[in-house]
Amino acid sequence: MTDIAMIEAAAARLKGVGRVTPLLSSPFLDEIAGRRIFVKAEVLQHTGSFKFRGAWSAISALAPEIRAKGVLAFSSGNHAQGIARAAQLHDVPATIIMPKDAPALKIANTRALGAEVVLYDRVGGEDRNIIGEELRLARGLTLIKPFDEPLVLAGQGSCGLEIAAQAAELGITQADVLTCCGGGGLTAGIALALEAKAPDMKVRPVEPEGFDDVTRSLASGGIMRNNGPEAGFCDAILTPAPGEITFPVMQRLCGAGIVVTEAQTRQAMREAFLRLKIVVEPGGAVALAAALFHGDKLDQEVTIATASGGNVDAALFADVLAEGA
Amino acid sequence: MTDIAMIEAAAARLKGVGRVTPLLSSPFLDEIAGRRIFVKAEVLQHTGSFKFRGAWSAISALAPEIRAKGVLAFSSGNHAQGIARAAQLHDVPATIIMPKDAPALKIANTRALGAEVVLYDRVGGEDRNIIGEELRLARGLTLIKPFDEPLVLAGQGSCGLEIAAQAAELGITQADVLTCCGGGGLTAGIALALEAKAPDMKVRPVEPEGFDDVTRSLASGGIMRNNGPEAGFCDAILTPAPGEITFPVMQRLCGAGIVVTEAQTRQAMREAFLRLKIVVEPGGAVALAAALFHGDKLDQEVTIATASGGNVDAALFADVLAEGA
Repeated sequence: MTDIAMIEAAAARLKGVGRVTPLLSSPFLDEIAGRRIFVKAEVLQHTGSFKFRGAWSAISALAPEIRAKGVLAFSSGNHAQGIARAAQLHDVPATIIMPKDAPALKIANTRALGAEVVLYDRVGGEDRNIIGEELRLARGLTLIKPFDEPLVLAGQGSCGLEIAAQAAELGITQADVLTCCGGGGLTAGIALALEAKAPDMKVRPVEPEGFDDVTRSLASGGIMRNNGPEAGFCDAILTPAPGEITFPVMQRLCGAGIVVTEAQTRQAMREAFLRLKIVVEPGGAVALAAALFHGDKLDQEVTIATASGGNVDAALFADVLAEGA
Repeated sequence: MTDIAMIEAAAARLKGVGRVTPLLSSPFLDEIAGRRIFVKAEVLQHTGSFKFRGAWSAISALAPEIRAKGVLAFSSGNHAQGIARAAQLHDVPATIIMPKDAPALKIANTRALGAEVVLYDRVGGEDRNIIGEELRLARGLTLIKPFDEPLVLAGQGSCGLEIAAQAAELGITQADVLTCCGGGGLTAGIALALEAKAPDMKVRPVEPEGFDDVTRSLASGGIMRNNGPEAGFCDAILTPAPGEITFPVMQRLCGAGIVVTEAQTRQAMREAFLRLKIVVEPGGAVALAAALFHGDKLDQEVTIATASGGNVDAALFADVLAEGA
């Protein structure tokens, strides 16, 4: 299981390859929130999201003869791009199973990064697991799960190591650390890193309204599933339930979840544009939304929010900006 | 006059205050350009542009009793915000003379950062120098010029120190370094830093069509002025002529200027959005435009382009994005 040694080993494999993303801030955001806010800008990671960390961590750890046969992933987009790029840099083939209603930009990018994309009909009920299993067996591929995979979790944990070090440089050791939470890979990875490196920081998973499986699971003490539709505004983080590996970590280390509305998420995207000059996708903006608009649920004087991804279609981003004008 | 010692002293004063901005890249940009491109993301500097560096450098160097009386600046926006924020952090008053047709966002931000903004009618022919001189004398303010000021130049040079160090970490010592060029503060500052720290890099100033005073001045060997209108798409860099301090530095150290079209600048803004997840304003995107679309004028295998500012109104940015959809 993933521990701090595995996270530090993943960080060592990422050194010189992954990007140490900056911790950004603006007095304008502090004013909205009424406290100090820092944003860990994972949108600036390679392929535009933290997912490159976990993908590189997993692929770089494979035995060369296994890796050479290629890797397989299921993803609505960000894990897909992370895997595609990490495979491309290792010069091994990647096959990615994506829902055909994933954002066009994510599908196009995944292909452009050299992966073979196999689309399936999520809404129409096609089973991606059957499609994937056939390909895996036929080609001898190694499946790299998006979050329930210890090496992926270790890679995402490298983001937590950076948060601890960057905050310490600013003299900050206590903070609420808000994470955009789908299956819990980033959340659990950061929580494990902070447990070792910044034990006075508390991770708080953030989810969009209608997809609050982690929040309900943490409150009830057992894994709960989303019952609504599978698709929505925050496409990157609409996982149906917390992972079997990630949930016990979150249960042990995280505070209560926070749920934000779509309107708050859109506003957070606009504030990130205006005040931080970064492009954040819907699923990557929920933590900042919680930092800005849910201060009543936070305990500490400093908030650190992950901006976990920036892969948003231009038309949608323009639409979000136009609303605020 | 500004030299490497002054630049290093400015960098020391900025340490822990200014942000070390990342050097970003994307395989998609490399593909367009047909060579490796790195983008120095000064949009992520405090106040959304490199101008904070020079402002902090100048204000932090003032004698405390002089500084306490306050500072004065003329600016269409980015220098204004840099001065306002640096003065606010020093807890001294800032008075900023801005053209009333400057972008609304820049005027609003300058006020919100605690400065007193005095608007003048640039198009109607009001003389900002008379307005400023009256205020300076009446209030005992210290004028901080946007580029023809050795301490400001030293602050902008800190960006060049970072470029040299970050490129060296990537194993890069030779590159064309493209700068977005108005009065030449960033260009000359970076050139001075690279002369000392990365002498195999060559700075190439980039300007928008119709405002190519630096390019023509470098070609002719004497200061040439723009003859067209004072306002335009790339508002941040429409200075009428190179500075008296900056021009000799550029003449000694820079290669030929490069001129880009508005269409290329808009495309560069879209590519920065899509591929780097950063928000770049028109005047901050000309260097990337040259890197992407003027490779025939470049000599080296690696291009480093400054993305010098990101203070663009949401409506304009949405318009630029919509065009590319």
